[in-house]
Amino acid sequence: MTPIHHYHNDDKVMVAVDCIIFGFDSEGLKILLIKRGFEPEKGKWSLMGGFLKKEENLDQAADRVLKKLTGISNIYMEQLRSYSKVDRDPVERTISVSYFALINKDDHDIDLTKEYDAQWFNLKELPQTIFDHPEMIERALNVLRRKAVTYPLGFELLPEKFTMRQLQDLYECILGQELDKRNFINKVNSLDILIKLNEKDKSTSKKGAFLYKFDVEKYQAKSHEGFSLKIA
Amino acid sequence: MTPIHHYHNDDKVMVAVDCIIFGFDSEGLKILLIKRGFEPEKGKWSLMGGFLKKEENLDQAADRVLKKLTGISNIYMEQLRSYSKVDRDPVERTISVSYFALINKDDHDIDLTKEYDAQWFNLKELPQTIFDHPEMIERALNVLRRKAVTYPLGFELLPEKFTMRQLQDLYECILGQELDKRNFINKVNSLDILIKLNEKDKSTSKKGAFLYKFDVEKYQAKSHEGFSLKIA
Repeated sequence: MTPIHHYHNDDKVMVAVDCIIFGFDSEGLKILLIKRGFEPEKGKWSLMGGFLKKEENLDQAADRVLKKLTGISNIYMEQLRSYSKVDRDPVERTISVSYFALINKDDHDIDLTKEYDAQWFNLKELPQTIFDHPEMIERALNVLRRKAVTYPLGFELLPEKFTMRQLQDLYECILGQELDKRNFINKVNSLDILIKLNEKDKSTSKKGAFLYKFDVEKYQAKSHEGFSLKIA
Repeated sequence: MTPIHHYHNDDKVMVAVDCIIFGFDSEGLKILLIKRGFEPEKGKWSLMGGFLKKEENLDQAADRVLKKLTGISNIYMEQLRSYSKVDRDPVERTISVSYFALINKDDHDIDLTKEYDAQWFNLKELPQTIFDHPEMIERALNVLRRKAVTYPLGFELLPEKFTMRQLQDLYECILGQELDKRNFINKVNSLDILIKLNEKDKSTSKKGAFLYKFDVEKYQAKSHEGFSLKIA
C-alpha cells in the first residue's frame, strides 16, 4: 500500500464518552455517579463513561455505556463537549466527549447494582470525582441553567403529575436560588404549557395542592421555538 | 508493565479538528475553504483542518491549523461538536471536532497563498465539500443564527466603522431573510450598544449614511448577559 501522507499511527489516541445524568426528586437535583471499576483511580467516584469502540459512533457509545451501567436505554442524550488536556488521563492520551441527559427518576427503574456501584448524589453534596469530571459536571450544569430559562425542561425531570411547588423546587435547584412564588407562578402560567387537573396531592398538607400535567403539544412547540423566562 | 484493563491499542483512532471560519463583506456572508492537500479527496474543497498532535489539546490544534493555513492567529474560536461516523474518513477511523470562528475580513490580512489555495466562498455559492463538512457547516450556521438573536455579533464581523445598512445586511445574511428596515433600526437602538459618529459614508449615495461604532463596554456587557432580539 502506498503510505498515506498526514495519517500517522503515532498520533492515534483513545476516545471515551462520559455521561452527566441529571435526575430530580424531593431531595433536590442529583447526578448519577459510579465507582470506577478499573485502574487508574479504581474505586473513586466517576461519571458514567467508557471507551469508544471501532464499530460505533459517539452517540452509540454513550447509549451502550449508559445501558451497561444502569440498564437505562432510549433516553435523550445530547453531546456537550470534547475534553483533550494532554495529561487528563495518566495512563493513555484519551479525548473524552461529554454527554448530558435528563431523566425522570420515577419512570426509570435504574439497576443500581452492586457490580457497578451506581449512586445518585445531590448536587450540593457531590463527592470528589476523577480526572476533569468536576469541570465536565460544572459545564453540564451551566448548560442546564441556560436551557432552563429558554426551553421547558420539567417534562424530562418531573413525574407525570406534579404540583406547582414541585415545579418551583425544580427551577430553584437548577438555578441555585430561591424564587418569588407569585412571580414564578405568573411566569409559568404565561407560558401556557400546563394543564391543571381536577386532582390534589394531599401528601404535604391537609388542604392539598392541585396537580398539573404538561400539555404535551404546547410543551413540544415551546421546546422547539424556545422562550425567554427571566424568572429571578 | 501490568496490562491495564479497558485500554486497548486497537481502539485508538485519529482525531482531527475542522474550522468553520465566517467572514462578512459587501458581497455577503462567507466561509473560508481550502483545497485539500493530500489524499483522499486531494484537490477538493475542504474546511481548514488537521490532525491532533500528541503534545497539544484540541484548542491548540485548531489554532495551529488556522495559523499554518492562513497566517491568522489570536482569534476567538469556539468548539462546536465532535463528528464520529464510523466511515466518515475512508482511510482511517477519524473523529473530527469542529470549531467556529468569526473574523473581521478587513482586519485580517489573510495569506491566501498558492500553497494551500485558501479561498472565501459566499454562503449562497458554496462548492461541494468533502466528507461530512456540509453537515459541519450547516450546524455552525445554525449556531451563528441562534447566537445572532441572543448575543451581539457585529463586532467580530464588521469593520470598526459601519453604516446601519451594513449592520442590517449582516443580519439579513445570517438569518437568511429580509428584515423590515424601520423595525430593525428600532430593535438595534433599543439594545443601546451603538455610538453614532459625526461622520458619513458617501460611497453609496450623495447624501451619505451616518457611520456607527460599537460602544465596547455596553457591547461586552450585552455579550455577557445576552438578550432576546426577535427581529423577524
